[in-house]
Amino acid sequence: MHRTKVKVVADALDANNTIARANREDFDRHGVAVVNLMSAPGAGKTRLLERALAELDGVRAGVLEGDVAGSFDADRLSLLHIPVVQLNTGAGFGGECHLDANMVRSAIPSLPLADLDLLVIENVGNLVCPAEFRVGENARIMVCSVTEGEDKPLKYPLMFRACELVVINKIDLLPHLDLDVERLLANLDAVHPGVQRMLVSARTGDGVDELAAWLAEVPGRVRAAA
Amino acid sequence: MHRTKVKVVADALDANNTIARANREDFDRHGVAVVNLMSAPGAGKTRLLERALAELDGVRAGVLEGDVAGSFDADRLSLLHIPVVQLNTGAGFGGECHLDANMVRSAIPSLPLADLDLLVIENVGNLVCPAEFRVGENARIMVCSVTEGEDKPLKYPLMFRACELVVINKIDLLPHLDLDVERLLANLDAVHPGVQRMLVSARTGDGVDELAAWLAEVPGRVRAAA
Repeated sequence: MHRTKVKVVADALDANNTIARANREDFDRHGVAVVNLMSAPGAGKTRLLERALAELDGVRAGVLEGDVAGSFDADRLSLLHIPVVQLNTGAGFGGECHLDANMVRSAIPSLPLADLDLLVIENVGNLVCPAEFRVGENARIMVCSVTEGEDKPLKYPLMFRACELVVINKIDLLPHLDLDVERLLANLDAVHPGVQRMLVSARTGDGVDELAAWLAEVPGRVRAAA
Repeated sequence: MHRTKVKVVADALDANNTIARANREDFDRHGVAVVNLMSAPGAGKTRLLERALAELDGVRAGVLEGDVAGSFDADRLSLLHIPVVQLNTGAGFGGECHLDANMVRSAIPSLPLADLDLLVIENVGNLVCPAEFRVGENARIMVCSVTEGEDKPLKYPLMFRACELVVINKIDLLPHLDLDVERLLANLDAVHPGVQRMLVSARTGDGVDELAAWLAEVPGRVRAAA
């Protein structure tokens, strides 16, 4: 079979990493732990956040919302009465398919860092480029919906490797799908052996307490590692 | 709310369009009509193709499969005994999130154009960049799964505008979702008024005959327009 190699622009990624380190220093200085939340479009990131952040007792959380267009998710999360800042990546044409460190940097002045313990950055829905661009985060979560099929870890390996936690969402739909969850998990282990995983349903709330507990522990883990 | 503008690299898109025109000339010369098939990851493009291409009587079809990694979809479609060529966009790192005209150009020598009436190019699963890069196609279809939510046309407007047909897949799951289909269709009309749409289920086969009929007519429409 025919295969094309595409060069990765190493210089652009180096520049991104330099800015990501500057972001990280700003977050560290304010004692803010940062989670980069990634998934394909429609995997349920926002609904998961709506439910998990509502359960975060004693952790002051905020959200930076990345979208090509609109502020639909930011408007939804604002109802939680937490700080939410919208970053739009579209500029008249199709827009950027991911957040990069410089975009996040431009949003830092709008973030009330002194009032936060935890910042969740909800990335643009995409299984490729968000995994390539660090933005200054301490941890990365990727959300995978069971409706997307068993093969996604094999087709988008970097995304499933570049995270500390894989949240498998929409498990309430399993009785209505042909999906073999064991095969999905085996494919996950093939690209990221033993990575922590949670099976949840943002719709029914199943497993959301586990995700909330994980998020609540991020600030402590970051302090302990400092 | 804070918003960041990101510059679109107009020169790169101009260069892409030049190569896309060269691809189109090659396809035209061989009388091959080309459809660019796009969607988010896991929306069901391959399963739809498996079913729709099996129903294409009298049209010699082939597929160019775009994926970051692997040849899972190409292997599945090969079972239809049609020409299938795999293009991989990953090169050791995360890979490219879309096909561009140059990648497709590099695959043309591997395609048996003289033996085809219709070439379907299955793009990388992504709702942003594939819409920005023409590859030499005559028509574009985007597949949207009902599991992705009602808001996707508003959040990824270029993708829903840059196509002649929107296929709304997985309607067999509607009884198990909170989705309001009328609202999804209204959001679609808000960004692309009146665009042709089909409600289908690749799993049950509902509506697949309509998609197959649409695909079967593409070569005739291209010839009529020439």
